[in-house]
Formats: sequence, structure tokens, C-alpha cells
Amino acid sequence: MSSSSLPRLGVGMIGYAFMGAAHSQAWRTAPRFFPLPFDVDMAVLCGRDEGRVRDAAARLAWHDVETDWRALVARDDVDLVDVCTPGDTHAEIAVAALEAGKHVLCEKPLANSVAEAERMVAAAEAAAAAHGVVAMVGFTYRRVPAIQLARQLVAEGRLGQVRHVRAQYLQDWIADPAAPMSWRLDRSRAGSGALGDIGAHVVDLAQFITGENLTGVSGMLETFVHERPVAAEHSGLHGTAGQGTAQVTVDDAAIFYGRLSGGGLATFEATRFAWGRKNAIRVEVNGSAGSLAFDFEDMNVLHLFDATEDTRTAGFRRIVVTEPEHPFVAAWWPAGHGLGYEHGFTHQVVDLLGGIASGEAPRPTFADGLQVQRVLAAVEESSTSGNRWVPIQETPAATVGAHE
Amino acid sequence: MSSSSLPRLGVGMIGYAFMGAAHSQAWRTAPRFFPLPFDVDMAVLCGRDEGRVRDAAARLAWHDVETDWRALVARDDVDLVDVCTPGDTHAEIAVAALEAGKHVLCEKPLANSVAEAERMVAAAEAAAAAHGVVAMVGFTYRRVPAIQLARQLVAEGRLGQVRHVRAQYLQDWIADPAAPMSWRLDRSRAGSGALGDIGAHVVDLAQFITGENLTGVSGMLETFVHERPVAAEHSGLHGTAGQGTAQVTVDDAAIFYGRLSGGGLATFEATRFAWGRKNAIRVEVNGSAGSLAFDFEDMNVLHLFDATEDTRTAGFRRIVVTEPEHPFVAAWWPAGHGLGYEHGFTHQVVDLLGGIASGEAPRPTFADGLQVQRVLAAVEESSTSGNRWVPIQETPAATVGAHE
Amino acid sequence: MSSSSLPRLGVGMIGYAFMGAAHSQAWRTAPRFFPLPFDVDMAVLCGRDEGRVRDAAARLAWHDVETDWRALVARDDVDLVDVCTPGDTHAEIAVAALEAGKHVLCEKPLANSVAEAERMVAAAEAAAAAHGVVAMVGFTYRRVPAIQLARQLVAEGRLGQVRHVRAQYLQDWIADPAAPMSWRLDRSRAGSGALGDIGAHVVDLAQFITGENLTGVSGMLETFVHERPVAAEHSGLHGTAGQGTAQVTVDDAAIFYGRLSGGGLATFEATRFAWGRKNAIRVEVNGSAGSLAFDFEDMNVLHLFDATEDTRTAGFRRIVVTEPEHPFVAAWWPAGHGLGYEHGFTHQVVDLLGGIASGEAPRPTFADGLQVQRVLAAVEESSTSGNRWVPIQETPAATVGAHE
Amino acid sequence: MSSSSLPRLGVGMIGYAFMGAAHSQAWRTAPRFFPLPFDVDMAVLCGRDEGRVRDAAARLAWHDVETDWRALVARDDVDLVDVCTPGDTHAEIAVAALEAGKHVLCEKPLANSVAEAERMVAAAEAAAAAHGVVAMVGFTYRRVPAIQLARQLVAEGRLGQVRHVRAQYLQDWIADPAAPMSWRLDRSRAGSGALGDIGAHVVDLAQFITGENLTGVSGMLETFVHERPVAAEHSGLHGTAGQGTAQVTVDDAAIFYGRLSGGGLATFEATRFAWGRKNAIRVEVNGSAGSLAFDFEDMNVLHLFDATEDTRTAGFRRIVVTEPEHPFVAAWWPAGHGLGYEHGFTHQVVDLLGGIASGEAPRPTFADGLQVQRVLAAVEESSTSGNRWVPIQETPAATVGAHE
Repeated sequence: MSSSSLPRLGVGMIGYAFMGAAHSQAWRTAPRFFPLPFDVDMAVLCGRDEGRVRDAAARLAWHDVETDWRALVARDDVDLVDVCTPGDTHAEIAVAALEAGKHVLCEKPLANSVAEAERMVAAAEAAAAAHGVVAMVGFTYRRVPAIQLARQLVAEGRLGQVRHVRAQYLQDWIADPAAPMSWRLDRSRAGSGALGDIGAHVVDLAQFITGENLTGVSGMLETFVHERPVAAEHSGLHGTAGQGTAQVTVDDAAIFYGRLSGGGLATFEATRFAWGRKNAIRVEVNGSAGSLAFDFEDMNVLHLFDATEDTRTAGFRRIVVTEPEHPFVAAWWPAGHGLGYEHGFTHQVVDLLGGIASGEAPRPTFADGLQVQRVLAAVEESSTSGNRWVPIQETPAATVGAHE
Repeated sequence: MSSSSLPRLGVGMIGYAFMGAAHSQAWRTAPRFFPLPFDVDMAVLCGRDEGRVRDAAARLAWHDVETDWRALVARDDVDLVDVCTPGDTHAEIAVAALEAGKHVLCEKPLANSVAEAERMVAAAEAAAAAHGVVAMVGFTYRRVPAIQLARQLVAEGRLGQVRHVRAQYLQDWIADPAAPMSWRLDRSRAGSGALGDIGAHVVDLAQFITGENLTGVSGMLETFVHERPVAAEHSGLHGTAGQGTAQVTVDDAAIFYGRLSGGGLATFEATRFAWGRKNAIRVEVNGSAGSLAFDFEDMNVLHLFDATEDTRTAGFRRIVVTEPEHPFVAAWWPAGHGLGYEHGFTHQVVDLLGGIASGEAPRPTFADGLQVQRVLAAVEESSTSGNRWVPIQETPAATVGAHE
Repeated sequence: MSSSSLPRLGVGMIGYAFMGAAHSQAWRTAPRFFPLPFDVDMAVLCGRDEGRVRDAAARLAWHDVETDWRALVARDDVDLVDVCTPGDTHAEIAVAALEAGKHVLCEKPLANSVAEAERMVAAAEAAAAAHGVVAMVGFTYRRVPAIQLARQLVAEGRLGQVRHVRAQYLQDWIADPAAPMSWRLDRSRAGSGALGDIGAHVVDLAQFITGENLTGVSGMLETFVHERPVAAEHSGLHGTAGQGTAQVTVDDAAIFYGRLSGGGLATFEATRFAWGRKNAIRVEVNGSAGSLAFDFEDMNVLHLFDATEDTRTAGFRRIVVTEPEHPFVAAWWPAGHGLGYEHGFTHQVVDLLGGIASGEAPRPTFADGLQVQRVLAAVEESSTSGNRWVPIQETPAATVGAHE
Repeated sequence: MSSSSLPRLGVGMIGYAFMGAAHSQAWRTAPRFFPLPFDVDMAVLCGRDEGRVRDAAARLAWHDVETDWRALVARDDVDLVDVCTPGDTHAEIAVAALEAGKHVLCEKPLANSVAEAERMVAAAEAAAAAHGVVAMVGFTYRRVPAIQLARQLVAEGRLGQVRHVRAQYLQDWIADPAAPMSWRLDRSRAGSGALGDIGAHVVDLAQFITGENLTGVSGMLETFVHERPVAAEHSGLHGTAGQGTAQVTVDDAAIFYGRLSGGGLATFEATRFAWGRKNAIRVEVNGSAGSLAFDFEDMNVLHLFDATEDTRTAGFRRIVVTEPEHPFVAAWWPAGHGLGYEHGFTHQVVDLLGGIASGEAPRPTFADGLQVQRVLAAVEESSTSGNRWVPIQETPAATVGAHE
């Protein structure tokens, strides 16, 4: 029944693990709930092992496969390249795709170093000028409706001037020393540990919600468990060959504080060693006129305190962010019928396609990704230099002026 | 890429409003996350208005359309009929489909009267014998992972003997008298109001989680707002013709208590007039060895109190039901990446197809639906006869023996 | 340093167990935090065993003792009699004290039967006329600041017309069948079980907060554990003599629903078998303009939903009821420094003395206590007569007009 | 009735504002609920204005007054000096009292500088040797039952090795720039702002609960509002004479992180600018075997996650810390009848008197107070020196060995 009159947009995706599955669900689902400016064609999936990528494509509903990402980038039926690989490959793939005139959606963190991220921003700018293509980085949590509402309320001035942000990303999946080695614990693949994997998200959320950037930080990284058993399927890890254990070469936890461009204070914590916290992305903002609080463990809720209310009845409001008036919600279910983790990916597709149609790169752009990368790098530098204050270079105003 | 070697199962769905959208998402999504015994073919969607059903089919990914449900039932490429229409049509459609040798998934409540429900159970039994088909009623909330876990814990004896159930379904979408008339407020279409629409769910959940049936009830129904404005699109409501207001002919709220087959006490409340409660399905169970508490407003969480623990450290445990060990969860995301409302529908498809493959009707069967219908009828009878105790006829043991 | 110029008010208290300790703390503490119209003299404590009552008086700071309550009532230095004994003695003591021209504070439930309560109301009215004394019943939870605020908000119309009350009092102290026999489980002493002990509180709270009375009920009582071990110290229980077990002669749980005088629906549950709930007094009110929710397990908090707010930012407000603007709070600590269980007793003393000074009996009066007694009796009658609806006689308007 | 045979202990208290009221309630209440080794005599209250101190003494139940603290210290009927004045006077008074052979209870922070605190520790050690007197600092929150339970669980090894502490003390009482000047905002009186007033508490709690000390910190202080109106009653503030505004000379907020002696990471935040947070003392601990979480806004509750539990039913337990098995609780009310803010002061008196009777200084000693002072000083130093890491000198092992 899909004799669509919309222009076709061919998507090629590289990688099909956790992120690949989430992105696939988004590509499949967005057209079913949202009016889109394109007829999305899930054209081709890329992975190195042909048998496995064929199985994945069948399962995830991709039409064709490639085993070499360069072949995927070169295909005429691919208009957009969706990069779901580990961070060490982001720069190379994204730059090639942009140079080939493809739109790019790249998973976070944008890259494993500031230098790579800068190269990607340059490529994105060049490709925008040359081909009119857009580049977006996948800080998906921005598109949880409660987070969008938080951003709206700050932008509307409901919180006044921001004085405090406290942001934490707490998990516990490697709190047990017997949890096996993973590419996410290998610096050569992942770039960093908790800092880049989950700390990047809360840095982005803090900046997104407040509409301000961090101007400097002081921080400390720590690795609690230095050696982990190698699970059979990970024997291909760098520097290991199926032997009993492998070295963890990234941080297990990162704590840092910083100053926002508007003068407020911000504290951050990212750890995978917080037993009992499964995916607790907590962001609190205190402004001169009110406060916000969010915890992803209750993702359909935003707490708002409005200091202009009568003291006698003032209190944090538990807003169930499932009303038609709330961002993205009208497309889904009636009030109270909450959304789940993967819905943010669908919303990301919606905004990405909207950006392509309008010719304006949707936020977060690669420049936004670079800004986060600079924060991460500054935390690392502080951590290795006596915890001293490390200022963060401004990203050109043109690309980060208006958030959202 | 889907050159599946699985046997094909053609699905025909009738209705494409709220429930139709949720079922469609389930039919599309189940094969992407779960290994299924069939290659699902979303063959045909049925609605009375050809233009609108064609639009819906394109949007929801159905291959073909019909405008007469009898035509859909008669099609050779339809193996399973999915009934997503208002309650007044359930019996006729489901019975016809079963007689035609089709599997049936029917939305809840099973019917608008006990007599209809009994006819449907008889048809399901006859069709099972004649054609080997299965019939399931859509009490979807059973398949929220936290509810499944609740059922498991009770079945394992973790709560001991059940002494109390308190179950509430609280909404607020018509708390405002200016909210427009809807078919759900029209007795001739919906059968009853809050009682059948949402009360049915908490009756089913109470019986499912405890593995016990209600043996009698006393109850009271109330209509707070007797006349409502007619929205333009509802001018076809029975007894109205675009005029300003229409009579509400169902209950706005139902309160009742009852006794469980194991001797415990149960209290129930269903209302759409609880300002601020959006979809608060709350079920608490107190047993001789512990307690459970659930609220759909925090749907990925189950609270468990284990009375055998040391008093000094005993307390309700907030179990985040997102671990691979939890029902249905391993197919989705890592721990803490919660599910949303529609995932229960996907799980329903998974179990329905498993039941078809095994030849055993998955719970809740039509007999389970009839049992709930009897409870609803008993509440209505009590309400109109001085709130006296109304016993509930037992459903044959064979069909409700083992809850799951 | 207390060379007070205030008139002296001599207090005589009968009973020194749980309630006696709480009342003593209130008598000692009220003058330290609140300006009072009297110089309170904790004159005399009464108990049957002289050695034990002397120890208690020393510990609780009473000046003298009596072993016969009639002697206490007869003393000239006693202006107010505080009755903290089990319910079977309330009527006799209170009536005698009133006839002797003493003010009376009587613990709840007012009596063990409606007839006794009626006698007490008559005595209170006669004594008020003859001696200008006041009589108050100890529904102390009314004076938790969050409950007072709830009452104020309803009285101010913030909730509009009341449509629903759901009230539960959940405890678990006898959920274990090995918990010993107590006078509270002996019908001849306590009158009833969960119904009168804790159900009475939630009936009173529902009526107090809404400013409406119950006009009828349907209910069911249940005893889960019929025989309990006798602890050594309880060997004097009626009908037992140190033997191994004693019969429980009261209800373990009560569930009932009713209608409020304004037309709203109310549901109630009182049980001591809710494992994990320690003193969960939960009251929720849904009105046409908003909702309230309270749980004594978080006693310094009131949740308010205001339906007139913009849907986008509406939500239950968690009001921390510790501001100077909140009832009784200014006398205590800064915001956020919450109160505990016994503070309600201090507030009760404050209002009682204010009522004595003004000559107006403070609510809840004996008439209020009688109204609750009638509700309890109606629940019992319904429970023993097929759960039928039992109307509740109106209490004369003069005595229950203005709540608070 | 108090013909006590216990030895008399005369108490003299200096200051009668917020802390004086709390301490008075504790001195009055402790003997009524706990068996004590002394007959407490609330002998004398000291304040500079005779009229006001006489009023306060009458209200708070002190027998006599002084207007010069030196006179109070010199009195023979004073065995213990309770210092409830601002921090700038602590050292002088406490040292004098110790030299006079009096026991001392001194409010926190111990002093306004490390040098003063060191002098106080030396005086305490000398007085202990010379007179056998004890000295205790008033970190009262240690004696909230839930905090005591937290300490016990860590000490028992239930959390394993501590990896993370995150501690926040959030208030909002000066978030409004129109809130008036106070001595707490005057560096010459208070020593510091949020850091010393409330940050001191969370530093102490973090060290108390974990049984570990901070070995270094990096931090940042901030003042958001530099000038505030002078309320009439504060015209005597240093450097002001009733004019319109006064300079705020302390920090409004402090953020810092540090390392614990066991290797774990700790983050801290103290602010009075967190709109909507009234007295939110939040402490979370993540260890190798489990986690704890506490928030004073729900002060009778401790959350415990035990990582050794089966994943399927593991979850944070909400322990309602009101059972007889819990610290201090058996003396009060039945389970679920929670305590309030001031109960910690009563528990402090109980332990202080126990320490005097046993001759062993109760924790927190002056040495514990000095340790906290060193942390505060290190945060200030880091804040003014590029946020660099500032190590914290060890306090002699003898005095901080066993926490609790």
C-alpha cells in the first residue's frame, strides 16, 4: 500500500550491534507514526562478516548488504550514511561519506579525539557548501520528550538565570570485576571509558538544556578494575588472543565540575560502578526562578519547581510528559501511555529528515559534537595535570548560537 | 533480505484507531526482535471508509484493504483475524472468524455482555476442535514485563497466601465536563464506561497476578457528567445528529470490592475523573509472606517486599525490570533502557504466535475474557440492587486452571 | 524561670502506655514552642498499679499519681481529664469527668458502640451548658500540617467538587501469625479491630479533609488469624490465664466504600496485614478542579494537582509542608526540617487549650467522634447482612457544620 | 515525682536562637524517653540581652540566666557547657570551658579556621587528661537513625569497598536576592557560607558513613548575590548601621570532589540556591558489594541495594527506619510512626551523657571537627589557587580510629 509520492531517501547503515538495532527500529518506525518529507528506503547494511551481516539485515529489515563500508559509501542508492561503529572509525567513515556527498548521522561520541572531531566538522562544513548535505551526531537522549520539554522551559525563561547543573550518568554493568572485557573498555577502540561513553551524554544534555556551554573544567578519572576476563566472542580484541584476561585501558569513572558560559556551576559524574543504578541519567538545573529535575529511570517524567508560585502551595511538579502538547508525543499514544528508550531514536530520524528537507543541519551538529569532545579532552587533561582548571576553547558562534 | 523459510501467517485486522495502531506496531515489530515460528504477513486491513482505510493501510504497513469485515474473514490469505473494533461488534466478528477456521485475537473487553461472551467461548471451543485454531483476548497489560514478574513471584510462592489485592485504574481524560462525547461513553457501543474499558483491565490483572478468581463482588457505579458536547467528527454517534450535546449513557466511575477464590480480599476502583492520574494502573498484593506493588505510571518497575528478610534491612525493593533475566526483556535493550506502552502488544503477538505453533491457546483465552465479563456484570447487578453481594459463577476449571 | 502570669490549668491523665507517652510529650512540649492561654500543670497521672504508675509519672514528668480514676476526676487540682485508656472505659470515665465539670480530651475511637458515643455526646452538651467545659476526641492525625493544608485547600475550593476519596490505613504489625495476642485484638476491650483502631482514623480524615460526611456504606470485615500466642505480660487478658493461645475476636481487616454528602464516592481499607507498610495512612481526593494525595510514610509532604494549570506543565506538586506559611510550622524549625509523629499531639494540645480559652469546643468534638462511630457501626452491619448498603444517620447540623 | 537517685549534671547553654531551641528540646526530652546516667539540670542560659535571655529561659525551661558567658563557665552548678553561638566565638568559649574543667558540646562547624580548631583539640586533650572531661562537636545529622543504620551497614561490610560517595546539601532559603542579610552571610561571624554551614555536614556524613577520611580535594566557591537588604533586626551586623544593603562576604555555593582514604571518589555540593530543595541532605554510597542512598527530605528512610542478591529480584530497598531494631528507635514509637528533625539532638544528648559516664569522648570529637575543618580549608585553598588538588593533612590515628 506504500505507493508513496515522496522523494526517496536511501539509507546505508554501518554496524548492527546495540546501536544498529536501535537505529534500525527508528528507520522502520518513524514513517509509521510521523509525516516525513521522504520515502525512507532501508537500502543497505554493512558489516565485515558476510554471513552475520546477512542475518542481521534479514532480522532488521535492510534490503541489501555490504562487507566494506567504502562500497556502501560509494553506492548510488545511498543518500545518507548512518555510522553505528565504535568511535575509532567514526572520523574516517564520516569524512569519506561527506566527501561523497552523503548526509551523515554519526553515533556519539563524535570521535576519539579533538583532532578527529575537528576534521569531521571541517568535512561537514565543506560538504554542506559543496553538496548541501547535513551531518548530525547521535546524542539521542536530547529527543526524549521530557528533555525536550526541559529545554523549552529554560529557553522560555521559566528558570531564569542558570546557577547550578548537577548531572550524573550512573550504571552498574561492570561493577562486578568478573564482567568480561569489551571493546568499550579498550582505549584504542573506544577512546575513553565512562567519560566518553556516558559522560559525553550528560555533558551534551547539560549544554543542550541550559543553552550554555562549559567554559572550563576540573576533573578526575579512575579505573577500579584493571584486568578483566576475556569472553570467547571478544578474543579478537586488540592485544589479546583468547587468553584469560585483558587489560582495561580506559576509565571506569569520571568526576568533574565546570563553569557554564552564563556563570553557573556544573558538576558531573559518570560511572559504571554504581550498583543498583541501571541507566540513571540524572540532570538537575537550578535557576534564579525555578528548578528542573530529570532521571532516565523514570523517563516519561520531568520535575519542575516554579519559584514564582505561592510558597504555601509551591512544590516540584511531577509532569508526566505524555500529553499531546508535549514534544513528539501527539504522534504516539494517549496521555499516560509512556514511551520507552528507543523512541528517542525515532524522533532523531524525524528531525534529521526534517533538516535534510529544509537544508538546515539539525542539532546536534558535528560542531556540537566537537564541543563535547573538547570538554572530554579537558577533563582528561585536568585529570593528568594535578586536577587544575582547564579552559575550553569556544566553538565558533555561528554553529552553536541557538540551541535546538 | 527476508527470504524466510518459515511458514507464512496472514493477518487481517479490523479497525485502525488507537488499538489498530498499537496492534500494527506489534505485528511490524515482533519479527525484528523475537524469533517467531511464522513469517507474519500483514495482509489486509479493514475499515468502512475506503479512502480512510487506504490511508491507514499505507501508514500502518498493511498490504491490502477491505471495507467489509466479512470479506476480510473470507479471504484465503488471512489466517488470523485481529479484532480492534468497539465492543458491540466483537461477538459477531469473532464468531464468524472462528467458524471460518481463523485464529482470532480480540480486543478487550471480550464482549458487551456475558451472553455474547459465552457465545464466543463456545465458538472458540468449537473452532479449536474443528480447525485447531486459537482464540485470545487482548488484556495486553499482562505482558508488561513487571506484571509478568509479579505473576511469577506469586506463582513461586514468594508472597505466600494472598490476603489483599488493591487495584485501581485512574485516568483523567474526561474529568473536564467540556471533554467531548465519544463512542466510549455510549452504552450501545461500549457496553459500559470506566467499568468495562479500564476496570476490566484491573480485574484481569488482579486475577492473573494472584492466579485466583473473584468469587463475588459488591459495587457501585456513578456518572458524574451526564451530557457532553458533540465534537464534529462524532456527529454519527447513535442518537445524535451533529447537535450540541449528547447523553453519556455509561458509568464514569466504578468502585467495588470482592473476595478471591483463595479467601483474600480485593478492592477495585476504575475512574476517568482522577485529575492528574494519566494512566495509573496500580496493583498491590499483600500475602502472608510478602507484598508487591506496581503502578503503570512507572511501568518498568516492580516493588517487592519480602517478609522473610531481616527486619533491620527489610524494605520494598524497587526492581527495575529491565534485566535479561526478566520476562521478554532479553530481546530488547541493555539494563535500564526501559520499554514503553506498546511493547506489551509486541509481547502479545509473540505469545499468540507461540500458541498457534504449539496448538495450545495462549492465555488470556476467551474463557478468561468471559470470567472478567462475569465480574463486570456482577458489579453492575450489585450496583442496581442495593449494593448487595453478587456471587460470580465459576468458569469451568479446565480452561482457567493454570494461569500464566 | 516560669513565674507565669497565665491562669493555671491542671491536667489529669489516665493511662500511660503508647498514647499516654504521646500525650505526655505534647503536654510537656506545647508550652515550649507555642504561646498558650494557660500555664499547664501536669498534675496527676492515673494507673491501677501504684508502683508502675509512680515510675511512669517520674519518667513522663507528672507531679502526682492516683490509682483510681474516680479519685483523679474528683481532684480540685484537675481541670482537664485526658483519657488514654482502651475504648471500653471511655464512656464511663468521660461522662463522669464531664459531670464533674472537667474538660475532657478522649482518645479515639470515641467509644466501643454508638450507644456509648451518644451518651458521651449528651454528657458533653450538658457539661458545656452547665459548666462551660469542652470535650474533644483525639483524632490526632488531623493536626499533621500536611493534613491541615489539605483541609484548607479543599475549603478554599481549590479542588472544586469532591468526586473521589480513596483512603487506606495499612500496617503489618500482626501480619505474622506468631505476633502475640493484645488487648487490641480483644473485642471486649477494643470494640473492633482494624476497623476501629485504624479505620476510624481514615474515616475521620476523609470527612475532615472534604468537609463532608459519609451518608452510607457497604463493607466487609475479615479475620485472617483466629488464634494467637499469649505473651507473658498479657496473661490478664479477658478469658485467658497464661495459657498458650487466645482467640482473636476482632477483625484483622476492613474494606468498605461509601458515598459522601456532596455526592462523591469514597473507598476505604484498613488492615494490619499489609506486609511492608508500617503506618501508611494514604488519602487521595479527586475533585472537579484538582487532586490531593497524602501518605503518612512521607508525612511532611502533600501532593497537589491543580487542573486549572496549563496542561504542558501541570503535574502533581510535591509540597514540602515545612514553610512558615503552613499550619503550625512557624513555631518549629526552618523549612525542610521536618516534623515527626508526635508533633500532631502537641498541635492538638494547642488547639484544645485555645478552645477552652475561647469557650468553643475544638473540632473534632464528641459529636464528630459519634459520627465516625456511626460509620464504623454501619460497616459492621453491612458486613453481617450480605454487604448491603447501610445508610448513616445524620449528626445534628449544629455540631458538625463548619469543619476545622 | 522526680526524686532521682542519679548524679546531677548541670548544663549551661550559651545562645538561644535556632540551635539553642533545638538543644533545649533535646535536654528536656532525652530523660523522658531514654534511661540516662545523670539527672540533667538545665541550670543556666546565657545571652547578652538580659530581658531577652530571661524570656528565652522561661520559654525553653532553663532555671537561671547569665549575660556573660564567662560567668556561666565559672559557675559551680554548671558541669557541661553547650555552645550554640556563631562560629567566631566557639574557640574562645570552648577553650575557656575546658580549662575550667567543664564538659563541652560545641555546635558545628567546630571553628572558623583550622588554627582555632587545632587550639580547641589541644584544649580538649589537655582537659581530658587534667579533668576527665569530654568534648563533642554537634554534627547532629549523624544521629538520624537512617544515617546510623547506613554507618552500621558499611561497617559490617555490606557495601564492600567504597568506590563512590556523592553528597549534596541543597537549600533555597537565599535563592531570592531579596532575602535579607544575616550573620550567616558575614564572613567575620560565620567563617564561610554554604561551605561551612551545610557543606561541613555532608563532609562529616560522608566520612562518618564510610569510616574513611578525605585525603585531598579540588573545589570551587561562588557567590551569586553580593549585596542584600538589611532587615531591621540585623542592623547590628558588622560594617552596617541600618542602611539599605550589606555586602555578602561568604560563598553562596561550594562544589568540590575528593578522594577517600580507601581509594574511592567523592563529589560534594553545598548550596542555598537550589530552588525547591528545602533541606535536601543527600548522600549516596556505591561500594563493590552494594549501594546506599539517603535524602533528609525523607529522613526516616534508607535505600539499600545489595549486589549479592539474585538479579531478578534485586532492587533498592526502601527501608523505613522505624523498627525497634533500628538505632535509637525502640525508645520512641511503634514502627512507621516516624521521627522529625529535632530527634537527632536528643540522640546526641543520650550519647554525650553516655560518653561522660564512661569517660570516653563520644564521636564526633573535637578531632573529628578539626578533620572537617581541614577539608573546608582545603576546598577554599583549591578554589583560590586554580582549582588545583589540595592534600589534606592526616589527623592523628588515635583520635579518629573507630568511627561511630
